Amino acid sequence: MDMALNAQVVLRNRPGTRLADTDVEVVETEIPKIGDNEFLVQSKYISIDFAMRGWMAAGRSYIPTLDLGGVVRGCSAGTVISSRHKDFPEGAQVCGMLGVQSHAVSDGTGVYRVNADQASLQRWAGGLGPTTALTAYLGLLHAGRPQKGDTVFVSGATGAVGSLVGQMAKLKACRAVGTAGDAARCDFVVSEYGFDACVNYSADNLAEEIARTCPDRIDVLFENVGGALFDASLLRMNTYGRVVLCGFTSDRTAPEPYGVKNLRAVLMERLTMLGFILFEYADGYQAAADDIGTWFADGKLKLQGEEEVHSGGLPAFATALNLVLDGQNTGKVILEI
Amino acid sequence: MDMALNAQVVLRNRPGTRLADTDVEVVETEIPKIGDNEFLVQSKYISIDFAMRGWMAAGRSYIPTLDLGGVVRGCSAGTVISSRHKDFPEGAQVCGMLGVQSHAVSDGTGVYRVNADQASLQRWAGGLGPTTALTAYLGLLHAGRPQKGDTVFVSGATGAVGSLVGQMAKLKACRAVGTAGDAARCDFVVSEYGFDACVNYSADNLAEEIARTCPDRIDVLFENVGGALFDASLLRMNTYGRVVLCGFTSDRTAPEPYGVKNLRAVLMERLTMLGFILFEYADGYQAAADDIGTWFADGKLKLQGEEEVHSGGLPAFATALNLVLDGQNTGKVILEI
Repeated sequence: MDMALNAQVVLRNRPGTRLADTDVEVVETEIPKIGDNEFLVQSKYISIDFAMRGWMAAGRSYIPTLDLGGVVRGCSAGTVISSRHKDFPEGAQVCGMLGVQSHAVSDGTGVYRVNADQASLQRWAGGLGPTTALTAYLGLLHAGRPQKGDTVFVSGATGAVGSLVGQMAKLKACRAVGTAGDAARCDFVVSEYGFDACVNYSADNLAEEIARTCPDRIDVLFENVGGALFDASLLRMNTYGRVVLCGFTSDRTAPEPYGVKNLRAVLMERLTMLGFILFEYADGYQAAADDIGTWFADGKLKLQGEEEVHSGGLPAFATALNLVLDGQNTGKVILEI
Repeated sequence: MDMALNAQVVLRNRPGTRLADTDVEVVETEIPKIGDNEFLVQSKYISIDFAMRGWMAAGRSYIPTLDLGGVVRGCSAGTVISSRHKDFPEGAQVCGMLGVQSHAVSDGTGVYRVNADQASLQRWAGGLGPTTALTAYLGLLHAGRPQKGDTVFVSGATGAVGSLVGQMAKLKACRAVGTAGDAARCDFVVSEYGFDACVNYSADNLAEEIARTCPDRIDVLFENVGGALFDASLLRMNTYGRVVLCGFTSDRTAPEPYGVKNLRAVLMERLTMLGFILFEYADGYQAAADDIGTWFADGKLKLQGEEEVHSGGLPAFATALNLVLDGQNTGKVILEI
């Protein structure tokens, strides 16, 4: 790669359930010039997320369809290398949805500064990144609006998002109850991440387990997984509770979506159920990153472990994404440019 | 009945799916005295609603459990016969949840004045009452918050609530699309109530019918019925749409609740789904009744027809309620005291 050019991963074909080699291509273009109130970022890490496949698909979605030939969408972390923007000076470290490319010009929309003294850029792209810590923070605090003493119920509590949602709930003086796939994982959620309790997906009587672990019912339900446990948890909601739908990972492998039977709880308990899409909360990115950095530097947030850093550069993008689409990763995957 | 006494229907046993003769009893007590800022209502009509059975049940609900021996809950319409309250003078006609009894003292909470020049007291208790017109008004306008030009999708459009939701949507310059159980009822919804279109529950391809009748998608989904049509309509929601859950009447006769598969739409379209319980909107009763009365007097609201007035007085309460629980009524049932 010529460092004086912008290396970009562009879309050639819409992918199926995983990426074929011909679906994307690395191309090199001129590095764009900045205008007034713009800055140029050189990205170092790309966050590799399951959602990226959807961002390449055609059809109605929460973001416009990417034209064939366009730069594949992705969140990255990097350094401002030239700037005519007062809030993003040269040398600043930033994160944002800057695309799967080595360089990007931005006017600051959806981009936020990160403090490299609080965490490494690798962390800011990975375990503390937009699709992990910012999603946890904004989904819990802005969408879920927990009050002190509330019970926050988080499905997928061993995950990169769920583990942080529970820790942030504790930082806000809430009771945090997680869910996980077996007893050992449940123990880990409590001992490692400090949740007050954890419900095993495979428990014989989910309703009893939820009742036992949530004696004061559930005020905020942060849903990552869906399925039978989600359905059962609806019946344990408190009056005026908030149900934040962040994902339904259990539907990914199911032949058809799970049929939710307990929506009557939304009526009876006068719940608010809402869908959380990170990009709707861009106004909150900077404050979220400031809190997250401070908490992490103070040792208040434990991450799943080191990121899985793929060092093959942009040509390795499809391989890295397929790993995530196949569910073969163990930690948060990032691609080093 | 002694007109100098308060005749009350009190709860003796929790009813099953319908009321047994021994579940309620008519008793007579002293007419209570009013204090400062209170008034005494002599009720003339009681609204007979499916929900009343739930209001007599034990267990968690959106209202506190009624103790055995307590006056059965119900909405009524009547006249203020003595008052020490400035907003409810003697002679005023009022509606509110005053219980299944001939007399009630109130401080005005949840009670609103109605204009007998605009509609008869029978209408105010029935087709224009709390569980019909106020539910339609507050559920649509306060919970659903339609904007001019929005598409409002109303299930159960031949019903006492649904028919008014569509008419009110039209009054607010929205597109109103209903649903009904067969082609003749669909035609009626359009010709009689002025809906722009109506989807037949029994259509072969619900998704296509919804797409055809809602070319600009659905901004407000007002749900009275639930089931497969509700599930399909979720996939036609517009970004940032509101889903107001008012009831799931189709679950009443089903062996188990319908399993809703398309909640992913809440996430993808960033919907807000909320449960509508009338009593949460008491602050809006008076303004709603003022608008409803004006619209009705101006000929802008068509009702289903005359109320089914049961004239047996309070001793006929169980019979009247069982008619509704059995689904044997054709119009809105009210009981004349």
